[in-house]
Amino acid sequence: MSPKITTELLKQLRQVMKSPKYVQEPVQAYIVPSGDAHQSEYIAPCDCRRAFISGFDGSAGTAIVTEQHAAMWTDGRYFLQAAHQMDNNWTLMKMGLKDTPTQEDWLVSVLPEGSKVGVDPFIIPADQWKRMSKALRSAGHDLVPVKENLIDTIWTDCPHRPCKPLITLDLSYTGVSWRDKIVALRSKMAERKVLWFVVTALDEVAWLFNLRGSDVEYNPVFFAYAVIGMTTIRLFIDGDRMMDPAVREHLQLDSTLEPEFKIQVMPYGSILSELQAVGASLSPKEKVWLSDKASYALTEAIPKAYRYLTPYTPICIAKAVKNTSETEGMRRAHIKDAVALCELFNWLEKEVVPKGTVTEIIAADKAEEFRSQQKDFVELSFATISSTGPNGAIIHYKPVPETNRTLSVNEIYLLDSGAQYKDGTTDVTRTMHFGTPSAYEKECFTYVLKGHIAVSAAIFPNGTKGHLLDSFARSALWDCGLDYLHGTGHGVGSFLNVHEGPCGISYKTFADEPLEAGMIVSDEPGYYEDGSFGIRIENVVLVIPAETKYNFKNRGSLTFEPLTLVPIQTKMIDVNLLTQKECNWVNDYHQKCREVIGAELERQGRHEALRWLIRETEPLIRVQ
Amino acid sequence: MSPKITTELLKQLRQVMKSPKYVQEPVQAYIVPSGDAHQSEYIAPCDCRRAFISGFDGSAGTAIVTEQHAAMWTDGRYFLQAAHQMDNNWTLMKMGLKDTPTQEDWLVSVLPEGSKVGVDPFIIPADQWKRMSKALRSAGHDLVPVKENLIDTIWTDCPHRPCKPLITLDLSYTGVSWRDKIVALRSKMAERKVLWFVVTALDEVAWLFNLRGSDVEYNPVFFAYAVIGMTTIRLFIDGDRMMDPAVREHLQLDSTLEPEFKIQVMPYGSILSELQAVGASLSPKEKVWLSDKASYALTEAIPKAYRYLTPYTPICIAKAVKNTSETEGMRRAHIKDAVALCELFNWLEKEVVPKGTVTEIIAADKAEEFRSQQKDFVELSFATISSTGPNGAIIHYKPVPETNRTLSVNEIYLLDSGAQYKDGTTDVTRTMHFGTPSAYEKECFTYVLKGHIAVSAAIFPNGTKGHLLDSFARSALWDCGLDYLHGTGHGVGSFLNVHEGPCGISYKTFADEPLEAGMIVSDEPGYYEDGSFGIRIENVVLVIPAETKYNFKNRGSLTFEPLTLVPIQTKMIDVNLLTQKECNWVNDYHQKCREVIGAELERQGRHEALRWLIRETEPLIRVQ
Repeated sequence: MSPKITTELLKQLRQVMKSPKYVQEPVQAYIVPSGDAHQSEYIAPCDCRRAFISGFDGSAGTAIVTEQHAAMWTDGRYFLQAAHQMDNNWTLMKMGLKDTPTQEDWLVSVLPEGSKVGVDPFIIPADQWKRMSKALRSAGHDLVPVKENLIDTIWTDCPHRPCKPLITLDLSYTGVSWRDKIVALRSKMAERKVLWFVVTALDEVAWLFNLRGSDVEYNPVFFAYAVIGMTTIRLFIDGDRMMDPAVREHLQLDSTLEPEFKIQVMPYGSILSELQAVGASLSPKEKVWLSDKASYALTEAIPKAYRYLTPYTPICIAKAVKNTSETEGMRRAHIKDAVALCELFNWLEKEVVPKGTVTEIIAADKAEEFRSQQKDFVELSFATISSTGPNGAIIHYKPVPETNRTLSVNEIYLLDSGAQYKDGTTDVTRTMHFGTPSAYEKECFTYVLKGHIAVSAAIFPNGTKGHLLDSFARSALWDCGLDYLHGTGHGVGSFLNVHEGPCGISYKTFADEPLEAGMIVSDEPGYYEDGSFGIRIENVVLVIPAETKYNFKNRGSLTFEPLTLVPIQTKMIDVNLLTQKECNWVNDYHQKCREVIGAELERQGRHEALRWLIRETEPLIRVQ
Repeated sequence: MSPKITTELLKQLRQVMKSPKYVQEPVQAYIVPSGDAHQSEYIAPCDCRRAFISGFDGSAGTAIVTEQHAAMWTDGRYFLQAAHQMDNNWTLMKMGLKDTPTQEDWLVSVLPEGSKVGVDPFIIPADQWKRMSKALRSAGHDLVPVKENLIDTIWTDCPHRPCKPLITLDLSYTGVSWRDKIVALRSKMAERKVLWFVVTALDEVAWLFNLRGSDVEYNPVFFAYAVIGMTTIRLFIDGDRMMDPAVREHLQLDSTLEPEFKIQVMPYGSILSELQAVGASLSPKEKVWLSDKASYALTEAIPKAYRYLTPYTPICIAKAVKNTSETEGMRRAHIKDAVALCELFNWLEKEVVPKGTVTEIIAADKAEEFRSQQKDFVELSFATISSTGPNGAIIHYKPVPETNRTLSVNEIYLLDSGAQYKDGTTDVTRTMHFGTPSAYEKECFTYVLKGHIAVSAAIFPNGTKGHLLDSFARSALWDCGLDYLHGTGHGVGSFLNVHEGPCGISYKTFADEPLEAGMIVSDEPGYYEDGSFGIRIENVVLVIPAETKYNFKNRGSLTFEPLTLVPIQTKMIDVNLLTQKECNWVNDYHQKCREVIGAELERQGRHEALRWLIRETEPLIRVQ
C-alpha cells in the first residue's frame, strides 16, 4: 500500500474554498465527512469523497482541510490503514486517545479569528451540525453550509451516482404489502400527531415499498427519498427504473387507486425544494417527523417549530421486528448459506492440509462461489473477512494482495462472511484450525464459545434491552483476564443491510430499543491476540418467546434461536472447560445442524459436504 | 394510615400564588419538588414541603398545584403509599406507566394560554429547570422563579432549619487532611482551567473539610456551601457551631496560615449574593465549576458563558475512591455491625420461636440497641426496613404501628438496616426464616443468592462501569422467569451518605463512572412476591484488584471483597441449586465470618452470639 499523493488535490480544494463561484464567502476550513446524504454505513463510489481527497478508504473517518492543514480523524480500527494510505500532507488524529483534540477544538486552535468553516449540508447529520456549530460559534467562528460539494467540483473523474434496476418483492417474501405498511405508518403518525413523515435512510425506503436495488455494494438499496403525508405518497427517485413494468405493476402506478395510495414519483434531486414547500405550507401545531440523523439540509427545510425528531423512526422499529414470512425467509437463507459453508470447509480441508495453496483471497472467492450456487443468491452482504494467523487479530480485516496470507496447518483461520439472498441476509463467523491447535488457542476459543452460548441461551424478561446481555458474552473471558474490544451483536436486516438498528448487544449503546420476539441480531464474541491470531464465533439469532418456570408474572420471557446452522469446530474446544449445560448446548446445536443442513445437502446431492458435516457434528463427550 | 386533609392548605396556597406580596405576577401553577437546596436524597423536616402540602411523605415525588388541580408524580415504589396518604384533592400520577403524562405535558394540557408556572429556584436543579422551561415555553407558557418559597409562607409551624454541632474527623479516620483535599481539588481545577469551584452537595462539603454534622437524619452532614478559589476558601455556614474550639482548631481558623488556606466563614444565606459577586467579577475565559445538579438559583448566579458544569464533581469522584484509612475504618465499622446483628439474630431466634412477641418495630429497635452498644456508633444510616411476610415485598417498607406485623415461625423475615459509626457506614440485608421455609421460598432465596455471588465474585477489567455487572445478579432468576424491579447496588459513603455517586450497579444508569479499586458499593439482588414475602441479600463490597491468569494485557482486573460479614441463613439455601463454585463461595464467606466476627464476639465477651455464629456458619455440603 503506497499513500495517495494529494498535494495537487489539496491545492485545488483550497482554491475552490476561496472561489466565489462555489462559496458566497471564502471558507477557511472545509469538512469532508464519511457519509452520504442518507447517512448510510456503506456508500457508493461517487460518495467516497473523503477517500478521494485523502487516500484513506476505511469505513469511518472525517477529513478537515484548512488553508495550512489537512487532518483526518478516525478510530482505533483504522490507525494503521490510514497512516499507510495518506501522504505527508495529512495529520492523523487518533480518536479515543487522550491527547487527540476533537474536531471542534482543533479547528478553534488552528483557525484565524472569525473564520468560516464550510460543510455540505446534505452530508452532515443535523445533530452533528448542531454540536459543531455551537462549539465553533462560542469561539467566534461560523459553520456555514456550502451548497455545492467542493470535493465534487475538483473530482473530475467522479463516478456517476448508480441508478440500477429495482427488484420487486412480493408478499411471500415480505409478508406485508407496501400499502399495509403505509397504513401502519400513518397510524403511528396519527398517534404522535404528525402530518408528514420523511424517509431518508435508504433501507427504510426499500423496506417501506418492498423494493430492493443494487446502488450500493453489499446493501440491496437504491437512492431515493420518500415523503409520506396522511393522504399523499411521494417517492423521489431517478432514472428510468420507474419505467420497468414490474415496478409499475408492483407500485400500482398505472392503476386507479384510492388517492391516498397513489404514489407520486418525483426526481431524486427535488426532495429539498419539495420539503421546503411542505415546510412553508404548515399551520401551527402541524408537525413533520424526521430522524434526528437526517441531513442538516433536509432538517432545515422544516422550520424548527414544526419538526418532530426521534432517534429511531417508526419504520426503523417496524422493520426490526420480522414477521413470519421474513423469519421463514431468513431460515431458508441461512440453510442455503450453511450448505455453501459446509462445501467451503470441506474443500478447504482437502486443499489446505495437503497442498498449502489456498490464500485468504482464494478462500474468500471460493466462499462466494459456493454461495452463488444457491437459489436466490444476490450478492455478498459485506466484504468477506478471510484471515489467517496474525491477520485474524485485525478485527475489520479484508484480504488484499499486499496482506494476503496462505492458509496453513499451523495457524488459526477466521472467516467472517455473509450474503444477500432474495429471502434473507446472512452473517456468520467460524474460526478453525486445519492442524493441531495449541492448548492456549483452544482455551481462548472455548472461553469465546462459552460467551457465545451464554448469550444464545440467555433467558430474559420481555422489555430487556440488548446491551444488558453484553456482559454475559464476556464473563468467561473476564474470569481469566481476557476481553474483546467490540460489541457482541448488531441487528440484521431481512434481505437488507447486514447492520441495522434499533437493537443490538453492546456495552457501548444505551439508547437501543428493547428486544422483542421477531428481532434478529448477531451473537459474536471474540478474542484477539495481536500479531498472532483472532477468534470469533458468530451466529445470527432470532429473538423468540421462552418458556420459564414462572414466566415473569406474565410479563413473558424471551431467548434466542440460532438461525445460523454451521458446525463449530469441536477440535478447537477444550471440553473440560465447558459445563455439562454448555456441552449439551453444543451437542444440541450440532444435532440440529446435522438434521436441517444434512437434509438440504442430501437434497442438493452434495454428498462429500454431507460427510464432512456428519464428521464435524459428532457429539462432544465431557469427562466429569 | 388516613389521608391528610389538604383542602384548606390548597386554598391558602392558591391565594399566595396570586398574592403580589410573594409573586411579581400571579402564577397559575406552582411546582413543589421533593428536594432541598442541595438536592439531597434525605432531607430535614423543614424541607419536607411536598409532604406538608400533600400528606405524601415518600422519598420521591413532585407536587404541582394549579388553580383547579393538584397532582402528584411518584414512582412505582410509592403508588400505594401516596394513594393512602393523599386526600381526594390530589390526583396521583403514576410515573413509569404508559398513559401517565409528564409534568410538562400535563401542565400544557390543563393551563390556560400564556400561563406562569412558579417554582422555588433554590429547590429545582438547573438541568430540570432547563428541560421544563423549554417545554413550557414551546407551548406558550413561562416557568418563573419565585424567590420566596410559597409553601413556607403558609407553613405556620414549619420547623427551624437544624443547626447542630459539628464533629471533627482527624487523619486516622480520613487519611487525608482538608488542606491536602483542597490542594488536590485546586489541581483538578487547574487541569480544567476553572478558577472557582462551588460545593453544593452537603456530603461534598462534609467530606472536603473532614467535618460531620447531624442536621439531616441518617446522613452525618450539615447545612453549608463552600466556594473554593485558587487562593480563597469560603465556607457558608450558620449558627454558633463555628465557635466550637475543636472546630476552630480543626479548620485552623485562629492560626496564621498561608492565605490560600485561610477559611473565610460566611452566613449560609449569603451564598447567592457572594456567588453573584464572583459571577460579576469574571473576565472572559474565566470559568466557575458547578455540578449540573446544582440549583437553578446558584447556577444562574454565574453568567452562562462562565459556567463549567459536569454531572459528577471532582469531589464526588475523589470521595468515592476510599483511601486506606477509610477502608480500614469501613472494615472496623462492618465488624462492629456484624457483632450487633449476630446478637440480634440470636436474640430473635430465642424470642420469636417460642414466644411470638416480637413485632417488626421491636426487632428494628432491638437492632438499633445492639448497634448503639458498639464503639463510635453515631446513628442509623437509614430507616430500618424490618418486614415480615407480605410486608417484605414492599421494597421501601418501614414499619409503622398501622402495618406492624409480628414475626413468626411461618413467615420470611427481611431486615435491611445499617448504621453510621465514626469510622464507617454500613448497610446490610439478611432474609431469614425462623421456622421451616417452603421449597418455593428456598428456591427463590437460592436464585437471589446465586445472583449475589455472581456479582460479588465477578472479575472484570479495569475501567468497567458498574451497570455492566447488573445482569449477572439477575441471570439465575431470569432462567426461571423471575426478576426484581430495582438496581443491584449503590455507592456507599465512608461515615457519610449511605447512597452516594458516581458509581453503582444498575440497569437504569449509563452515566456511572467506571469502578476503581477503593470504591465501595452494595450488592443487593432480591426477589419479591407481592402479598407474600420479600427476599434480599445485601453486602457492602469493596472494589479490589483481582488476580487473573492473563490480566487483560496489563489493563488490570478488579473484583469485590465483601466488607459485610454476617452469616447468610443456610436453612434458606437449596444446596442442590448451587454449583460447586457457588457452594465454595458460601463456605469461604462463612469461614471468614467465623474467623473475623468470631474473634470480635469473643473479645467483647458475647459468648451466646458467638455460639449462634458458629452454628450459622457450618459449611454447606453439596451432594453431587
